[in-house]
This record gives sequence, structure tokens and C-alpha cells, in this order.
Amino acid sequence: MVDEREELIARHPQEFRDRQQIDVHIRHEVVDIDTQAARVDVRDLATDRVRSHDYDALLIATGARPLRPPVDGIDAPGVFGVQSLDDGQRVLDAIADRDPRRAVIIGAGYIGLEMAEAMIERGIDVDLVDRGERPMTTIDADMGKRIADALQGMGVTLHLGVEVQGIEVAGDGWVAAVSTDAGELPCDLIVLGTGARPDSALAGDADIPTGVRGGIVTDPRQATSVPGVWAAGDCTQVFHRITEQPTAIALGTIANKQGRVAGINLGGGYARFPGVLGTAVTKVCGLEIARTGLGEQEACDAGFEPICTTVRSTTRAHYYPGAAWVTIKVVAERGTGRLLGAQIVGEEGGAKRIDVFAMALWNGITVQELIDVDLSYAPPFSPVWDPVLIAARKAWDEVEAARG
Amino acid sequence: MVDEREELIARHPQEFRDRQQIDVHIRHEVVDIDTQAARVDVRDLATDRVRSHDYDALLIATGARPLRPPVDGIDAPGVFGVQSLDDGQRVLDAIADRDPRRAVIIGAGYIGLEMAEAMIERGIDVDLVDRGERPMTTIDADMGKRIADALQGMGVTLHLGVEVQGIEVAGDGWVAAVSTDAGELPCDLIVLGTGARPDSALAGDADIPTGVRGGIVTDPRQATSVPGVWAAGDCTQVFHRITEQPTAIALGTIANKQGRVAGINLGGGYARFPGVLGTAVTKVCGLEIARTGLGEQEACDAGFEPICTTVRSTTRAHYYPGAAWVTIKVVAERGTGRLLGAQIVGEEGGAKRIDVFAMALWNGITVQELIDVDLSYAPPFSPVWDPVLIAARKAWDEVEAARG
Repeated sequence: MVDEREELIARHPQEFRDRQQIDVHIRHEVVDIDTQAARVDVRDLATDRVRSHDYDALLIATGARPLRPPVDGIDAPGVFGVQSLDDGQRVLDAIADRDPRRAVIIGAGYIGLEMAEAMIERGIDVDLVDRGERPMTTIDADMGKRIADALQGMGVTLHLGVEVQGIEVAGDGWVAAVSTDAGELPCDLIVLGTGARPDSALAGDADIPTGVRGGIVTDPRQATSVPGVWAAGDCTQVFHRITEQPTAIALGTIANKQGRVAGINLGGGYARFPGVLGTAVTKVCGLEIARTGLGEQEACDAGFEPICTTVRSTTRAHYYPGAAWVTIKVVAERGTGRLLGAQIVGEEGGAKRIDVFAMALWNGITVQELIDVDLSYAPPFSPVWDPVLIAARKAWDEVEAARG
Repeated sequence: MVDEREELIARHPQEFRDRQQIDVHIRHEVVDIDTQAARVDVRDLATDRVRSHDYDALLIATGARPLRPPVDGIDAPGVFGVQSLDDGQRVLDAIADRDPRRAVIIGAGYIGLEMAEAMIERGIDVDLVDRGERPMTTIDADMGKRIADALQGMGVTLHLGVEVQGIEVAGDGWVAAVSTDAGELPCDLIVLGTGARPDSALAGDADIPTGVRGGIVTDPRQATSVPGVWAAGDCTQVFHRITEQPTAIALGTIANKQGRVAGINLGGGYARFPGVLGTAVTKVCGLEIARTGLGEQEACDAGFEPICTTVRSTTRAHYYPGAAWVTIKVVAERGTGRLLGAQIVGEEGGAKRIDVFAMALWNGITVQELIDVDLSYAPPFSPVWDPVLIAARKAWDEVEAARG
């Protein structure tokens, strides 16, 4: 656990001023963009006063907006989103004040799983509710089954394929239960992990074009189609290198890289953002989960005919102390054997291997070529054939078999 | 520690017979190859009888031969090489029988460092002697300095730039000291980690061409230039993908992959071994060390003009429990920014990132392109900018700066 909230703050406004001569106005909200006049209206949240500012160049970095299920009671005290640092503090305060015994987490994605871990570590019982049949919609169902089994092993009570219908409150107004189409789940605390979407309302109001899931459309330099207006981060749509279509993914890695590209271009330099693979990793207690590229269904949806292979191996040489299991699923293209994606579920030391697949995907390698890549080996780090290579071998066998 | 020697045995001869109908003759030594007659002479070590066997196809997989410094006393009882499982058992037996207090390890490469760890774990004091000024000749001197500091922190006494001149024995014939050009090192046990070279004597005697460091020359299918004769593993030379020259590297990863390629071709299939990057990883107590591609000096030797960058980062988000330091050195080509190699020295959780660099090298990426690769992030696994990406950013800055 992280003890001090302060440790989580990357930079304070004063540091921007002192080190980079950047004036940062926190607690100020842009309420309107006039792209014709090149002007923004800004409300000072302390005084409620609105003032106009002219701009030469404007960067929109409004991030993502968490989704809240549209049910009765969703705004009751005791229901927490966890997008900002303040949100996190509010959950911690509620735990300290009310000593909850039972939490319901709505949504079994990254945030939901990470919150489940946080609750388990604090001795709070967890009911995890998701309308999907498996946790983690970004992971294929067969791998999701492994995650579900592991979560149950940690003591999480799973309610999958279950729709939330409302939030019940107690006499004091605080949440008391979540009602679902499968019955009522009593609880002392509710955390939302129901996803997010690009927060592009301001851009949309200013007629700056938006696309997938409302993400602001930019070119590879992060310029919008409106002169002088740039956008970067979770509020934008991004190019997916495998589907070759735009998508919207709210992840800090992507936002950071886009911010760098936008900054270089805004400063008169030249940089292009080359797109994403949808690489992500998370951990819930002892379980590591990672993915990159396309899952099986995503590959089908993108018009590929995928060949899928799953292997189980170990994170270290099987005889080495601390060797743990890791399951890898590889998605390859039928015929060519081109790598399309990979997913990893396993114990400690397995998931970061997703980066090797990401790097392989980046340049469009086949699983056949991947077999022979010179990866490192020593017993404390992997079997002689790294699990990545074992997966590639098996995947190539299947691609060949599918040729008949 | 591994408790049972049996755990280290991949397969017994009987398993080859039962599962794959392969007759394995252990304790039989090939003493001559007649490539004209397509025949080998084999000595049964139990009976000393030599018999001839005809072959249709012959695979030479004689491995590497450990080097022993040519000094007086090198064959005395108490001096141990550690190439085979039997060698390892002999060291363990000597430790059990003689309860040594002080070991001298000659050679500060992978084997020497791994043996240092094994001795430290058993409470035996270690003097590590190497003629080089830094441990690990496969790592650049500046990174080697970090390894030297860490070894001293573990209690290893380093004797670098020191030449072994002889082995002294006690009255009972067992080793008593190593004499060097910097004085005498008393000890109860000596372990050799002085490297290995391709064991190609048999092939050489049969006029099968050999090359770098005596490695048997093969084509990418692992065929020698003699019809019907193949070779694979530590006894061969291999193509280095960055220097585009042959080299000789005794590593199980390479040997395994070459064996697979040779087996497919011997069986009438088609496979090519695409060459190596010289990727390797090791661990000594809490210190992890890894490398791939070319070091600074190797790059110069191969005719590149390298730009080198070193960054220090953490294995996890800096605020996350268990975050450990990791230092990465990147070698890039001046002008183009092409990635030529990388080295990692750090604490637990850093070194396996070398595989991301290896995968990047495989396809000839530049450090500029590497900056934007979509690697995974979550606080338990890395900072938002993975150390690999931080190193790439810094390296690209330096490549640009060198352009003036």
C-alpha cells in the first residue's frame, strides 16, 4: 500500500511555474471555446467569475469521463467513482469513518479488479458485479474464465451476467444494498468501475469533430481539423496499428505519449504519434493479467481469420525456487501466421512479458519468426524456451495445421 | 536453492527410447569421423571397445569445452570446473565433506558470478579473481563498475586486473591457495569460471571446416559444407544479426534453437536459423544483469560509430512498494539512431526487460521509433514511461545532439 497521498502527485502547480515558466490554473474550468475568435471562456471556481482568454494555440486535454450506470440511487452517499486522486481519498475516508464490512464493486474491468484488491487487502468482503459473463471484457472469454477462478480463490464473490437495477439506501441516507436482476446485495460501500469515455463535450460544443466513442479526431501530429486547436490524451480517438482503424482507449501510457507529441508540435517541432496496440497490464492480489493487440473476437470483428493457441508454462525454470505458472494465449492470422495479439494470465513475474509481444506486434512479425528471436535465459528468469517462444512455436504449429 | 539433482535432468535415455524411439548411448565416445565412408568410430567407455557405425546423416553437437588457465596445480584436487551436472555434484560433495571457509573463483563472467552467489548463500567467503579491470567482459566497463560495486556490497572480495600464476596445494594434496601477480589468496576451494570455446576437435580432425574460436561453420540450415554432416549448438559458430559477422556464443538458448532447426532439416523439413543478438541475463544475489546486441566497444569494433546513453529508473512506479532501481545503457548508431544494443544492471524485476530491446533489435528499429512503442503500464509493473522508453527518449536526444 502507498502510505502518503503526496507520493502520488507527479508535480505541483508551483513546480510548473518555477521550473518551466508554465502558468497552471487549477480550479479553473473552461466553459466555452470560440474557435473563430480563438478565445476560451474560463470560470474561476473559487469566485464563479468567467473571463475570456485569447489563444494562439489551444490544446484540449480534457481526459475521460467515468460512466455511471443510469439507475436510481447512483448518486447516493456511499457510491464512489475512483477517477481522481480526490475520489481515492474519499473512498479511504469512508473506510476510515465507517469501517465497512462488505463492498459491492460494479464493473469487473481494470479499475474494478484493482479496487477488489484494495478492499481485500483491507479485510473488506467483496461482491463484484458485471453484466458480462466474464471479468475483463478486454480479455477473451477463455482467459477470463481463469481470471474468474482466481478471483473466487481470493474470496471475491462474483456476480457475472448480472444487471444492476438500483441502489438501496438506509435510514441515514447511506447505501445499504445494490439491487440486481439476480437479487439484492447488502453492502456498506459501493465502488464504480464501469468504464470511461472520452470527455469531449467542450470540443463537441465548439464543433471540433469527434469520432469513436466521442473521441476528438486528430491527425498523427495531434492537430484537430480546426486550425490552432490540438488535442491529446483520453479525450481523443487513436489509431490502432493492427485494425488500422481509430479506437478510444483511456490509458496513461497513451495519453503521456500523445502529450509529448503534441508538445513537440505546439513548440514548433515535428513529431507524429504512430498509434497504439492496446497494451495493458494489471494485478489483483497474486494474479497478473496483460494483453496487447487483438483478442480472438476483436480479430474477427476486424475482418481477420484468427488462429488461437494457449500454452501454460512457468515464469522461471521449473525447478527454480519461485517458479510460477503463466498462461499465454496467442492470436495469429490464418495463412500468414502474422501475430495479431497476445494475452497473459498468471502468477507473479509473468505479465510484463506482454511487452515482448507488443514489440513483436509493432513491426508486424509472424509467429514463425518469433520462435527464433534471441530472448534472454537464466533459470531465475525463465525456462530455456521463454514462455513467449513456447507460445510462438505452438501457434505456428496450429497455423500450419490449419493449412491442412 | 534446488534440493534435488534429479530435478535438473530434462530427460533420461529411457524416455527417449520409450517416447520417441531414439536410441541414446551414454558413456559412448565418438573417437573418429570418416566423412568419405560416412562412418563414425565409437568407444564404449565401460568396455573400452571401439566399434564403427555407418550413418546417412550425422549431427555434431559436441558443445563447448571449458577453458582452464595453463598454470601449475590447475588439476589439483579442490579445483573445480562447473560445466556438467556431475561437475556441480562434485562441488557440492566437496562442500559437504570439507566445510570450506573460503573459496577463490577464477573468472568473473556469468559462471563466476553465479558460483559466487552459490558460495555466499552457503556462508562461504568469496575471493573473485579476473584479469580484466571489470567483472563481465560482455558488459561495458561503465556498467561493469556498477556490478563491481554491488558485488563488494555483497561481501565478495574482488581482485580485478589480477593474473593467476599458479595453484598451491597443502600437505594432503588439496588446494591451499591461489598465487597471483598481486599476492597469494589462501582458500579451501577453487572454482573455475574462465569461459569456454567450441569443442570442435573431432570435427576439425575430420576436416570439417571451423571458424571463429574454432566453431564449426554451418549454413543457416545447420548443414556443414560436408554432405550429410550437420552441426548445432555450442560447437558451432553463429551469425550475429547486428555485426552481420559470425561469432561464437555458448548459450543454451541458442543451442536449443539451432537443435530445433537442425532436427527439422534432418527430418526432411525446412527451417533456417536466423542468427543471434547475444542476449543474456544473469543474477547474483539481489543483482540482475542483462545485455543484448552490441556494447559500446563491440559497436566500435564492428565499424559503427555509437552514441551511448545511460538512464536510471525504477522497476515499478516510484511510489509503489517494492520499486527497485534499474540502470539501462543504450547503444545507438550515430546519425540514424538505429538501436545497436542495450545493457541492464539493477535490482529485482529489471533485467528481463532486455527482451524488449532484443525484440526491438530483431527488426532494426531506431531509438526514435522505440519511444512511442505501446508498452504496458500499471504501478506494480513499471513507471508510466517504462524504463525502456525513458532510455529510448534519452538516447534519441543524444543522437540528435550529436548531429549538432
